[in-house]
Amino acid sequence: MSTANAPAAGGEDIAGTMQALGREARAAAHALALASPERKNSALAAAAEAIEAAMPAILEANRRDLAAAGNRGLSAALLDRLRLDEQRVAAIVRGIGEIAALDDPVGSVLAEWTRPNGLRIQRVRVPLGVIGIIYESRPNVTADAGALCLKSGNAVILRGGSESFHSSRAIHACLVEGLARAGLPGTAIQMVPTTDREAVGYLLREMSQYVDVIVPRGGKSLIARVQADARVPVIGHLEGLCHVYVHASSDVSMARDVVLNAKMRRTGICGAAETLLIDRAALATHWPAIADALRGAGCELRGDAAMRDFDPHVLAASEADWSTEYLEAILSVRVVEGVDEAIAHINRYGSGHTESILAEDPAAVQRFFHDLDSAILLHNASTQFADGGEFGMGAEIGIATGRIHARGPVGAEQLTSYKYLVHGAGQTRP
Amino acid sequence: MSTANAPAAGGEDIAGTMQALGREARAAAHALALASPERKNSALAAAAEAIEAAMPAILEANRRDLAAAGNRGLSAALLDRLRLDEQRVAAIVRGIGEIAALDDPVGSVLAEWTRPNGLRIQRVRVPLGVIGIIYESRPNVTADAGALCLKSGNAVILRGGSESFHSSRAIHACLVEGLARAGLPGTAIQMVPTTDREAVGYLLREMSQYVDVIVPRGGKSLIARVQADARVPVIGHLEGLCHVYVHASSDVSMARDVVLNAKMRRTGICGAAETLLIDRAALATHWPAIADALRGAGCELRGDAAMRDFDPHVLAASEADWSTEYLEAILSVRVVEGVDEAIAHINRYGSGHTESILAEDPAAVQRFFHDLDSAILLHNASTQFADGGEFGMGAEIGIATGRIHARGPVGAEQLTSYKYLVHGAGQTRP
Repeated sequence: MSTANAPAAGGEDIAGTMQALGREARAAAHALALASPERKNSALAAAAEAIEAAMPAILEANRRDLAAAGNRGLSAALLDRLRLDEQRVAAIVRGIGEIAALDDPVGSVLAEWTRPNGLRIQRVRVPLGVIGIIYESRPNVTADAGALCLKSGNAVILRGGSESFHSSRAIHACLVEGLARAGLPGTAIQMVPTTDREAVGYLLREMSQYVDVIVPRGGKSLIARVQADARVPVIGHLEGLCHVYVHASSDVSMARDVVLNAKMRRTGICGAAETLLIDRAALATHWPAIADALRGAGCELRGDAAMRDFDPHVLAASEADWSTEYLEAILSVRVVEGVDEAIAHINRYGSGHTESILAEDPAAVQRFFHDLDSAILLHNASTQFADGGEFGMGAEIGIATGRIHARGPVGAEQLTSYKYLVHGAGQTRP
Repeated sequence: MSTANAPAAGGEDIAGTMQALGREARAAAHALALASPERKNSALAAAAEAIEAAMPAILEANRRDLAAAGNRGLSAALLDRLRLDEQRVAAIVRGIGEIAALDDPVGSVLAEWTRPNGLRIQRVRVPLGVIGIIYESRPNVTADAGALCLKSGNAVILRGGSESFHSSRAIHACLVEGLARAGLPGTAIQMVPTTDREAVGYLLREMSQYVDVIVPRGGKSLIARVQADARVPVIGHLEGLCHVYVHASSDVSMARDVVLNAKMRRTGICGAAETLLIDRAALATHWPAIADALRGAGCELRGDAAMRDFDPHVLAASEADWSTEYLEAILSVRVVEGVDEAIAHINRYGSGHTESILAEDPAAVQRFFHDLDSAILLHNASTQFADGGEFGMGAEIGIATGRIHARGPVGAEQLTSYKYLVHGAGQTRP
């Protein structure tokens, strides 16, 4: 812990600093894997208390970060993500409490069967080991990710964005205090003690003996860099180019409400809808209500030629619009001839994150659910439900769009592996 | 398929050849993911028939491989793995039948729950997509791996060792024939059509848009190369440095039988025991019977000082012995003071594959099962049960020692991912 929390290292010391982090993490992972649920929860409770008590210091550290970020001309959106206030810190504290209240995934028996020779086989959840989490300048992720890893029995090495360095460090100190108060190694949650970008490269490329998996959480360029450079397994979170498909059989007012919510509830999250597909047969019946609702909420509409033939107020969409994750109040709209064309569009342009079909026709829903292969498919519900909390999984690190290990919301359970326990009575293999 | 099975390409064409394989595989994966269990099973049955019918051609191709391999001076063990005869081809045919008889993993509902807002959530198995399998010169793996991927709805790109090129190609042609007869794309199972090693590099580094996961199956150096070079997720199979621990409470004759089986049933498989740990308190009672059985079977024994003090006929083990996967009739033996020391030894030297404790004391077993974190832990049973077939999972591609996605035997079920299906009634997120 002493090494891990030393002041920022110079460039040439990065290898030494990171190696020390890795060794400490591996040792802590061993202790954490054996820790009882009670001990882990008591560390979480103590961490939450420590954050509450350290509120003034955390806000002061955040002011330093904000001042520096303002000088560097960060966008309003980024500054908003970086900003903490008393409510947001209180939300962080509540979030840790919610994670503590989750069922402990470790040790649960996933499956159990007996072989004809009498061997009884159990598949039992175990932690993954050491997780590296690379994220952008959102101080709350420091607490969420640290707490989720602790809950699931994993040691973690956190690397947040440099703009949130002081805020994250203040929160991190409270997590370490919680671990220590519960008698767990403070090194179970470590933070890379430098903002040098080379440390990320080292973490991705040189630490496969210490790090079992990397979870990147952030925008496209961060994920792309991690996936290109990592020599360690990655649980990736790509963009959410989410589609809503309005089938002709759908209820008009339900379609209006769900489309509005999917696009406009929060436009900046990965579960926000970016493209609307609408049956030609639904244009006359459904479009006026949907368009009124979206325009009333301030949403810009960009459509294909068929859409603009029907509603000349819709702007022209370019080819690039179909593969653009706007993350703002813009929606691309395409007219389709039915569920097959909707599926073909999503297969071509989608990111495999989340899609919703609005329909009363069960055959169309069945087709949509069977033929599409996104992480989350919804029927008559908003894409904004693509969230671990909304799935009942508690906090999440993100929505995985890869196909390996975890897919969809990544919560405590997804941060585990398993082992087999085989009970015999002297069996030998013939 | 035409491109994929063209004659071996020249070096400069590798990129083009591999890109074509990738494109074809991605398209085939889509068709395969939607294929019914009946259609996949009918392709497997037709492939098995085709292999039976092509027996003379397969054996002839194998003779070509064997002749070339003999000229290159391959070891007897490698030649044995490469060799096919009528019995072995019949076993391949039976193996495909057994895979067809497995439950189809695709579409099964893994979990299902309803949220307070009425959303009903299902987690449903789907194929992984496109799997790249890199293996050594064992022609039977061509059939096993191709059939397992087909069963689990995945397209596969096979790259076997160059010494088995003709044998594998003859078997591969039968798999493609089976696909075609069932109306599935022949490109669902493709073979890299060149023995140029650069093709492996290209598969590992340049095909992340086409390949979802790489499964290496083979020795240490193959796995190490794959893990170092891959830009695609890898389900790794490292060495099996398996331990048997004889606790003082164990039954003597059971301990003797299980140790003998764990070491000597087949010495060349990854589940074979390589190190025996024995309680000091068990030396007088257990060692004579165990040593007699092992020596009687022709096993060389290498022990630590305590072991040799007790039994001077045991040879001296060096430090390197504790981390050597012999894969032959040699066993290293260390005397320990109890379960904690056994666990410490395994944590230090083990490969996380398979370990067995022989004991009647439930506290010792509980400690061993809880504290150790190998993929497979056994009690009173031979480590040679580390096998997908013995686990009741049908055929396997290998035993995964990584912690991500799959651990332990990798069968059809482990070659899947999942998606969420969410059933609503117009829910919007507040």
